[in-house]
Amino acid sequence: MQTLQQKASEWSGVPTAQAFSIDDTNLFNKLGLQTFINLSTNFYTRVYDDDEEWFRSIFANSNKQEAIQNQYEFFVQRMGGPPLFSQRRGHPALIGRHRPFPVTHQAAERWLHHMQQALDTSPDIDDDSKIRMMNFFRHTAYFLVAGDELKNQNQQIPCKHAAGKDNS
Amino acid sequence: MQTLQQKASEWSGVPTAQAFSIDDTNLFNKLGLQTFINLSTNFYTRVYDDDEEWFRSIFANSNKQEAIQNQYEFFVQRMGGPPLFSQRRGHPALIGRHRPFPVTHQAAERWLHHMQQALDTSPDIDDDSKIRMMNFFRHTAYFLVAGDELKNQNQQIPCKHAAGKDNS
Repeated sequence: MQTLQQKASEWSGVPTAQAFSIDDTNLFNKLGLQTFINLSTNFYTRVYDDDEEWFRSIFANSNKQEAIQNQYEFFVQRMGGPPLFSQRRGHPALIGRHRPFPVTHQAAERWLHHMQQALDTSPDIDDDSKIRMMNFFRHTAYFLVAGDELKNQNQQIPCKHAAGKDNS
Repeated sequence: MQTLQQKASEWSGVPTAQAFSIDDTNLFNKLGLQTFINLSTNFYTRVYDDDEEWFRSIFANSNKQEAIQNQYEFFVQRMGGPPLFSQRRGHPALIGRHRPFPVTHQAAERWLHHMQQALDTSPDIDDDSKIRMMNFFRHTAYFLVAGDELKNQNQQIPCKHAAGKDNS
């Protein structure tokens, strides 16, 4: 059976070592807090204005300002900065926290499309950092698609059980 | 609705700030890699030898050496050391990776019992670090109990749907 990590690498086309090349340097020290705030603001402005209703609707029950803060605090924490996310919300628990959302291949690609646009319009991020970050995002997006599939597997177990009960 | 973090704090009795006091210092630099390897080896030796069959059986399908490595690599990464876990396995994704296991209150307490014993028999860890680590473990254990309850919530959705279909 393929692991989450193997699926993420295969589907994203990004090998693990490349996905975590964000750890070869301290991107937080290089870029600073405001850059991450700007990036997440830029990203979510695109998401909440998306022409594609199916994608926009995934975020309809989330507060935009909270979504921005959750994201940049996680990025800061994961890319060498202070653990802002955990101090406020605990472990990132990426798969667990994405459980309410349909993280499909199509949704991953749309997320990545907006993030690529956000990076392309971030003059305060150098090209090397953009490449490292995009590899990390690409791999992580498909890691969450793999996590989402686990959810569907688990859901079938109690249904069979319940159906058996109904028929007895 | 209570967040994962709020449940973890309430059930564990450890406030968030105290749970993440591991971040006030660099425990990896202080303790070194071998200390973490020793701790996880000590811990899992107790777990795999547990008199309580119900708890031991949770780990029956996992390889002991792999369990030890997964744990110390996560601890090292989370407590200020190199990202050993992510380089090999991707995001910690604590809730997602605990999905196959029944992380009940009772199981959390048994896990914590063994970890307390392991810490108590680790002369290479100073008392201050032991307290920080135990608060982190206690909070994290109940964070995962909260994550486990999400799993049960989700499982009910398709059953009702399936039952509706059967009766139509």
